[in-house]
Amino acid sequence: MRACPDLSLYLILGAADTAGTPFEEVVLSAVAGGVSVVQLRDKHTCARDQVANAKRLKALLAPRGVPLIVNDRVDVALAAGADGVHLGQDDMHAADARRLIGEEMLIGTSVHNAHEAAGVDPELVDYVGIGPVFGTGSKADPDPAIGPEGVAELSRQVGLPAVAIGGITGANAGQLAGTGVDGLAVISAICHADDPGAAAQRIRRSFGADNLVAG
Amino acid sequence: MRACPDLSLYLILGAADTAGTPFEEVVLSAVAGGVSVVQLRDKHTCARDQVANAKRLKALLAPRGVPLIVNDRVDVALAAGADGVHLGQDDMHAADARRLIGEEMLIGTSVHNAHEAAGVDPELVDYVGIGPVFGTGSKADPDPAIGPEGVAELSRQVGLPAVAIGGITGANAGQLAGTGVDGLAVISAICHADDPGAAAQRIRRSFGADNLVAG
Repeated sequence: MRACPDLSLYLILGAADTAGTPFEEVVLSAVAGGVSVVQLRDKHTCARDQVANAKRLKALLAPRGVPLIVNDRVDVALAAGADGVHLGQDDMHAADARRLIGEEMLIGTSVHNAHEAAGVDPELVDYVGIGPVFGTGSKADPDPAIGPEGVAELSRQVGLPAVAIGGITGANAGQLAGTGVDGLAVISAICHADDPGAAAQRIRRSFGADNLVAG
Repeated sequence: MRACPDLSLYLILGAADTAGTPFEEVVLSAVAGGVSVVQLRDKHTCARDQVANAKRLKALLAPRGVPLIVNDRVDVALAAGADGVHLGQDDMHAADARRLIGEEMLIGTSVHNAHEAAGVDPELVDYVGIGPVFGTGSKADPDPAIGPEGVAELSRQVGLPAVAIGGITGANAGQLAGTGVDGLAVISAICHADDPGAAAQRIRRSFGADNLVAG
């Protein structure tokens, strides 16, 4: 049976999020700074390029013991030998995905409110992303920000390993320390930082990640 | 080993192509008029809805002996129990897809020129769509129209079962009769017809489909 990985710092990126810098460079710096999971989210990239990017990421991350999750596309995850898929509320149902990927790969899902939290099947889903905590410019039409209290509430309700997501930076990560989540998911605070590794370290310190994780 | 199905009239549609009419209605009429394969192509629909639409189509088509092909999304095809996938030049490589789907499901691909035709691996790919034959409003940025002569040439080059595609209607389908292709792929000439079944019959007659297909 699969074990949920160290979720303490969960980086989400697409090829376009690292504009100007090859994404390998950003990822290696971020992992050196303490990123413990990477999700490839590339909604506007064709499947052929997504598979190529996922394979490149997998080759970078596997020797470093960092799991690769692919957003939405179960087929891309399978083709690249990724460690899991992340399925939003518009993506394939977890039950359909589980049939395709078997018992070894992870499934994560996104939860924005109590209704969605109630729909998470803990037999199928391994972890949840809860948010958006803070206002974010990452998505065109975001759900309303739920704040650290909202995150704590949904995390208790779901009862699965969880990361908070949405507008998290080194400056506000400390507000999530008491919410019961296992980690923080971040896009731009790392991808757009001049020094992704330093940004990752700062977020970990602010959240107190190293006090949470055994060892 | 898989056998290539009757390609004589190959309908491509997405939920949005039948605006106003439930797509079941269009598909049933089209199949009654002689459509022999249906491809679901739903680039702008989320995966969850694509799976739901593919399952509905599969339930309609299976009892009628008409195979269902899913465009691009190998995972959607697998989740819906479709009979195959169609992979454009930006979609997953056939080699990756074949590993995911096994030996029973079909793979089709799109070929627009001699370079792409040369890239088709007959060990992996079961049929090709060749075009665009005529000018078409179906895609935002179409490749140049190659005409019936271009279709004949690429069909000879590939040497696999083939359908012509692009701007085909009941009025011009006869021009494809001597090109060596096994059938015609159509979107709007059937989807947008007042009577999809009658449109399908007219295209078949014009192409001489019933003289080509054994039995």
